[in-house]
Amino acid sequence: IQLGKIDQFRAEFLELHPYDQATFFKEQAKEIRLKIYTYLSPEEMAEIIENIGVDELDPILTEMEPRFASQILGEMSTDDAVDVLNTMDQNEVASFLTIMDKDAASEIKDLLHYEEKTAGSIMTTEFVVVNTGMTVRDAMVHLRKEAPDAETIYYVYVVNQEKHLVGVISLRDLIISEEDWFISDIMSDRIVSVPVGENQEDVAKMVRDYDFLALPVVDFQNHLLGIITVDDIMDVMEEEASEDYSKFAAVADMEKDLNAFSAAKKRLPWLIILLFLGMLTASLIGRFEDTINQVALLAVFIPLIAGMAGNTGTQSLAIAVRGIATGEIEKEGKVKLLIREAGTGLITGTCCGFLITIIIYLWKGHFFLGLLVGISIMFTLIVATVAGAIIPLLMHKMKVDPAVASGPFITTINDLISVLIYFGMATIFMELLLH
Amino acid sequence: IQLGKIDQFRAEFLELHPYDQATFFKEQAKEIRLKIYTYLSPEEMAEIIENIGVDELDPILTEMEPRFASQILGEMSTDDAVDVLNTMDQNEVASFLTIMDKDAASEIKDLLHYEEKTAGSIMTTEFVVVNTGMTVRDAMVHLRKEAPDAETIYYVYVVNQEKHLVGVISLRDLIISEEDWFISDIMSDRIVSVPVGENQEDVAKMVRDYDFLALPVVDFQNHLLGIITVDDIMDVMEEEASEDYSKFAAVADMEKDLNAFSAAKKRLPWLIILLFLGMLTASLIGRFEDTINQVALLAVFIPLIAGMAGNTGTQSLAIAVRGIATGEIEKEGKVKLLIREAGTGLITGTCCGFLITIIIYLWKGHFFLGLLVGISIMFTLIVATVAGAIIPLLMHKMKVDPAVASGPFITTINDLISVLIYFGMATIFMELLLH
Repeated sequence: IQLGKIDQFRAEFLELHPYDQATFFKEQAKEIRLKIYTYLSPEEMAEIIENIGVDELDPILTEMEPRFASQILGEMSTDDAVDVLNTMDQNEVASFLTIMDKDAASEIKDLLHYEEKTAGSIMTTEFVVVNTGMTVRDAMVHLRKEAPDAETIYYVYVVNQEKHLVGVISLRDLIISEEDWFISDIMSDRIVSVPVGENQEDVAKMVRDYDFLALPVVDFQNHLLGIITVDDIMDVMEEEASEDYSKFAAVADMEKDLNAFSAAKKRLPWLIILLFLGMLTASLIGRFEDTINQVALLAVFIPLIAGMAGNTGTQSLAIAVRGIATGEIEKEGKVKLLIREAGTGLITGTCCGFLITIIIYLWKGHFFLGLLVGISIMFTLIVATVAGAIIPLLMHKMKVDPAVASGPFITTINDLISVLIYFGMATIFMELLLH
Repeated sequence: IQLGKIDQFRAEFLELHPYDQATFFKEQAKEIRLKIYTYLSPEEMAEIIENIGVDELDPILTEMEPRFASQILGEMSTDDAVDVLNTMDQNEVASFLTIMDKDAASEIKDLLHYEEKTAGSIMTTEFVVVNTGMTVRDAMVHLRKEAPDAETIYYVYVVNQEKHLVGVISLRDLIISEEDWFISDIMSDRIVSVPVGENQEDVAKMVRDYDFLALPVVDFQNHLLGIITVDDIMDVMEEEASEDYSKFAAVADMEKDLNAFSAAKKRLPWLIILLFLGMLTASLIGRFEDTINQVALLAVFIPLIAGMAGNTGTQSLAIAVRGIATGEIEKEGKVKLLIREAGTGLITGTCCGFLITIIIYLWKGHFFLGLLVGISIMFTLIVATVAGAIIPLLMHKMKVDPAVASGPFITTINDLISVLIYFGMATIFMELLLH
């Protein structure tokens, strides 16, 4: 299609949803992309660019003419443009802003200095605002004029003379109201807003709980600075879910790894910390070398016991981390959680311990060894289950993100605990084992 | 406040956002709640109930008069009412539906038979629909009439004579159009819709990618059956994120555990499976009992090597599971992923192996033991890293949800692999160790 027939291409392509346009565009070879740039206006390209992930944009923006690229950035929603510019280095940003349309550049500059992952960094300044003194008719006229540029027109925010946010009204309420009613009479004045420095995860939680389509962002004097729309919130939720997930697995972050070196660089720090923790366990076992010399069979069950401790710890860790994130534990009480985890450990430990005693007795014909491993597993599971819950709780208390307590970390700590219990008991009951 | 002053309570309480009403309501003692029921209409209570999680609703609905409860269910959004009814047993559902308003009951019955976690189970039937032949004026009149009941009025769906979905128009476009234009001229006829049986996770992905506020649900003949709104999508995203997380930690699900028994019941199946896998590792080490008898020091490093294998496996597992979920791996290619993981394993393995060789040499003064452990760690990390990626890929190929390949499962598998490598090498190089 694209071998010259501009009109036909435009007609068909622009009919598509921008997301589909973006998907199509990304799949094209460079030469085709260069042609597309000449076929489309900066405004049309802006819609496409907004639907491409920021990490994939760098090659695309650099292959364009800088002037064209800066026009595109100027046409994008300010929040999306800021996201793109945040991935570039200072010089690039400065040069783009210089050749950009003055108004767009100044709006972007205002947003660029908000800290990452705060309400300020995900908000947009393209919202619709009306004054308390307007009638519904005035507001609708204003709304129609603003509609093409606004990020959403379904919530209209109301400010007073001093530009303080005093109310909100939905388009739903506007269109069912009489034309000569005053905004101040029909607006809702119990507004839920967030301060500009609020953490994006908390913002997402509010939008989800209150089922908002957008949420206003204010400064400490209650001036309306911007709004955060639900589509950006969904991106935040996805990002945070990925992040929790990767922390849990002890991976620094989930960004696409281009090659083995960058992947290794991200994972090595964790592995090396865990290696040293593992050395502690090793040196602990070293102290029981005599015990092992007497009954080599003991060594056979080390990975089993350590593994079970790790498994149960990972389970209770997951419950605790999620519970902290959702606020469930705050409500329920930490002590109650720990008692429940101890109970859970007791039940699972007794079942697994009983099972393993029988298996080892049948397999090796050695009742006391079976009993030793069984009782060790029982105590280990109790302690490891509680440890899996208590460590994230302590981190939360010390204001450390509990999601940093990853599965591998808990597993390694629990290796240590389990070895201590197992060999401690073996040494004490050595007499019985030697029979 | 609630000691009698009905009017004052109503005035203040109903000013609040329904989510805040629900939060307040949940915190009250039973007697106060019983009073609130007499103060509020079923309609007002419905808004509160919609903002309480379905798992907390059972005691609340049973403490009400059944007639009042069924009125509330009738006033709720159909999708929310269906969610509530789905938590009850068949008899309860039947008795509620019998005393409910006929229209509401039949709408709910239609939705009740859709399978859980499909588009049908999360859609609502309260949408606004217009005909192709209407003008913008007609449509706005219709919209104002439907506004109080509709779940969203910001998207209006267009059907033809045969009730087939043929277009969609946003309220934004409606209000900027001339009043006597025809709907068929301004509607968008490239509609993105989902079949009623579509998986809810895929629906959520579409809403997120396309930035929709609502998505129409159709049957196989393209009849419009319902819509799914963005607030329900956010709940789905949260639910799916929790689910992935809990599967990763080998916990059956994340529902609140009321006591240790129910928690243990959910975790035990996993622990017992892992126990048997662990027994395999133990029996493998059993075969090397002679080796351990000769050099007891070998046993000291079992948890270290097994632990490192588990850690790296968990990392690459997380990357692979997320990559499959986001479709990233589909694009990149599985072979490329595996090669990269092997490379990552080689780099991390070499670094950790080198480090441990030096540490053991300095600590125990035993160079060959250090070298053995170091080389074992190197090979173990390569194999374990690849295993962490290849197992979820295989599961995905066999149409099993790859998120079932949990951290503990991979860790236990990798225990086995690492023990095999470590003792295999130790047995081969026994000569050198005995020096």
